[in-house]
Amino acid sequence: MYALYHYPLSPFSRKVRLCLAEKKIEVKLIEERYWEQDADFKRRNPAGKVPILKIGSKFFSESMAICEYLEDTIPDPSLLPRSAEARYETRRLVSWFDDKFYAEVTSKLMGERVFRKIMGTGYPDSSNVKAGAKAIKYHLDYMAWLLEKRRWLAGNEMTLADFAAASHLSCLDYVSDVDWNRSEVVKDWYAKIKSRPAFRTILADQIPGFKPSPQYANLDF
Amino acid sequence: MYALYHYPLSPFSRKVRLCLAEKKIEVKLIEERYWEQDADFKRRNPAGKVPILKIGSKFFSESMAICEYLEDTIPDPSLLPRSAEARYETRRLVSWFDDKFYAEVTSKLMGERVFRKIMGTGYPDSSNVKAGAKAIKYHLDYMAWLLEKRRWLAGNEMTLADFAAASHLSCLDYVSDVDWNRSEVVKDWYAKIKSRPAFRTILADQIPGFKPSPQYANLDF
Repeated sequence: MYALYHYPLSPFSRKVRLCLAEKKIEVKLIEERYWEQDADFKRRNPAGKVPILKIGSKFFSESMAICEYLEDTIPDPSLLPRSAEARYETRRLVSWFDDKFYAEVTSKLMGERVFRKIMGTGYPDSSNVKAGAKAIKYHLDYMAWLLEKRRWLAGNEMTLADFAAASHLSCLDYVSDVDWNRSEVVKDWYAKIKSRPAFRTILADQIPGFKPSPQYANLDF
Repeated sequence: MYALYHYPLSPFSRKVRLCLAEKKIEVKLIEERYWEQDADFKRRNPAGKVPILKIGSKFFSESMAICEYLEDTIPDPSLLPRSAEARYETRRLVSWFDDKFYAEVTSKLMGERVFRKIMGTGYPDSSNVKAGAKAIKYHLDYMAWLLEKRRWLAGNEMTLADFAAASHLSCLDYVSDVDWNRSEVVKDWYAKIKSRPAFRTILADQIPGFKPSPQYANLDF
């Protein structure tokens, strides 16, 4: 009954996949080369993006709106804390990763080095790659600063904030763009989340033409 | 007790201002020239953006996370519908305007023609201005398509989706970038939202060096 149009290296798709898997919802994954934008795809989602979740005959788009919908309809296990303040902190961090981290890191590193090749849009812009490689250090340090005070990114419970962050970092790790030696607490956090059953299908992703880095699927990295 | 660090022509700040005003929360508005990024400002919000809401001694950032927090803590009047499906549609449309409309229209038109001048970052890129002027037509048509079936954008109740859309359009209207003659239903919808008391402080905004368009504060435009 559930189907997800996704792309393996789309962090937004990964966040929804993790959310579905954690809630133990079986889903048929359908790979969508969204940049080719065929008419059928545009009909499903006028915004022209992945992920799109199909439930019965209905289509749902925008990754955070989908995750909130799943929280509203399948509240157990919950990926949003109970208290208003902790919910705020979770949503703030999802925006942090999906807006700021995406713009400063994911789109720069993955966009230039992977998606240009897959989409056939020319050679990487090395100034973007450099800017992304510099910015990820700042973001890893920010995560370390948070994780020194908390068990998970938004507090002492695992939330959508952890899934948002792990979605971006796992895409970058596929192409070896994460220096796990930079911070012990960030590495420990990623080891914890990576070993969850919900992460399994993500670690099995394969992109033709791009071999995953040696540590990508390794739980003991 | 509430203070909002904002910038008058920031659509994200406007969404939070509308939300606060609709919930009848008095707030002290503090104009923040966020691109100058002084150290004090960065301490309040490491993401370096507006709006930032201060409640007591706590700082809240990311406009949608703030709006959701206000919904969680001051639920009346509600700006998110009750049913899970209608909540989803509201959140989907907030993302539509804050991500897609912002990237394709607001950042192109306001970014080039207003913010370059205010921030002193050179002359407008005319190809961006042209792309923005073209894209806004598509978005107005999409809104018309929604509003032909519904009283408000996400359904028959006014929601955060209307505030998100009105925030972007009111910024563009300040510099006369909206063709209100394109669609009768969109114009009617904007007239309805513009005449709400919550809109008053927004219609009184003045940016030095940019006179508002003649219809900007006119309820009978």
